[in-house]
Amino acid sequence: MWTESDNKLTATFKFANFIQAFTFMTEVAFHAEQQGHHPDWSNVYNTVEIRLSTHDAGDIVTDKDRQLAKIIDKVYEKFN
Amino acid sequence: MWTESDNKLTATFKFANFIQAFTFMTEVAFHAEQQGHHPDWSNVYNTVEIRLSTHDAGDIVTDKDRQLAKIIDKVYEKFN
Amino acid sequence: MWTESDNKLTATFKFANFIQAFTFMTEVAFHAEQQGHHPDWSNVYNTVEIRLSTHDAGDIVTDKDRQLAKIIDKVYEKFN
Amino acid sequence: MWTESDNKLTATFKFANFIQAFTFMTEVAFHAEQQGHHPDWSNVYNTVEIRLSTHDAGDIVTDKDRQLAKIIDKVYEKFN
Repeated sequence: MWTESDNKLTATFKFANFIQAFTFMTEVAFHAEQQGHHPDWSNVYNTVEIRLSTHDAGDIVTDKDRQLAKIIDKVYEKFN
Repeated sequence: MWTESDNKLTATFKFANFIQAFTFMTEVAFHAEQQGHHPDWSNVYNTVEIRLSTHDAGDIVTDKDRQLAKIIDKVYEKFN
Repeated sequence: MWTESDNKLTATFKFANFIQAFTFMTEVAFHAEQQGHHPDWSNVYNTVEIRLSTHDAGDIVTDKDRQLAKIIDKVYEKFN
Repeated sequence: MWTESDNKLTATFKFANFIQAFTFMTEVAFHAEQQGHHPDWSNVYNTVEIRLSTHDAGDIVTDKDRQLAKIIDKVYEKFN
């Protein structure tokens, strides 16, 4: 689901509607804050696109990104 | 899961942790706002207790409450 | 605004409507998770009642509660 | 604050931190759902960029966008 290119991990998540998409974002937001690692993400209606890279490491993909990606996948499972 | 007594529908929902409980509440909040019908609810850590009755009908259980209860059950399914 | 009795800090917060009340709860939820200290709280429409005590200390009021109360007051300032 | 170009209303909002930014997004999300009109928005840490246009009108700026922009400005006032 995640692809790595341009020193970013990127994935797109689809939902039944906006409420589902934003509920997903809310849970991800709590985890991001807990990890002290925040996504670059966009939302349009039922679609959420997430880009992960580590600013402090010079905007490359690090284990912090891979860990957050795993957490996000776990959150997304609920919505399938 | 819901019990009716004292002119209220009441149910208690358990979650893995606070983040899950609050994410559940967020989705329910959107639906409540959409229905124009809001719960009387409490949260302590991983537990959410919801009480439903219809104020405008004299604080009794109406179809509005049964409908919101069904929506809430559907939201909760995700978290099991 | 907070009163201490029965080994609890308690306060009631009023808002213009449910959306405001739930937005306030969302910000408090992030801070609670960050503090690792969670409120016992209830919401009905535009009203949020919060009770704080420290379970690990035997359900009494501790500095953890006073600190969270201060953070909550700061969040509430926005909504006045 | 909003600029109109490429048939979009665009604005960028800055916050003290991620929690503030996401709390703002939560309130906007409720209003968007209520209006049945959803933003194209991105967030990175303390910054939220919002793009508004009306898909059903052929992706141009309509009164729906101007109305949502006004609501968003009102939400943002809290965070200044």
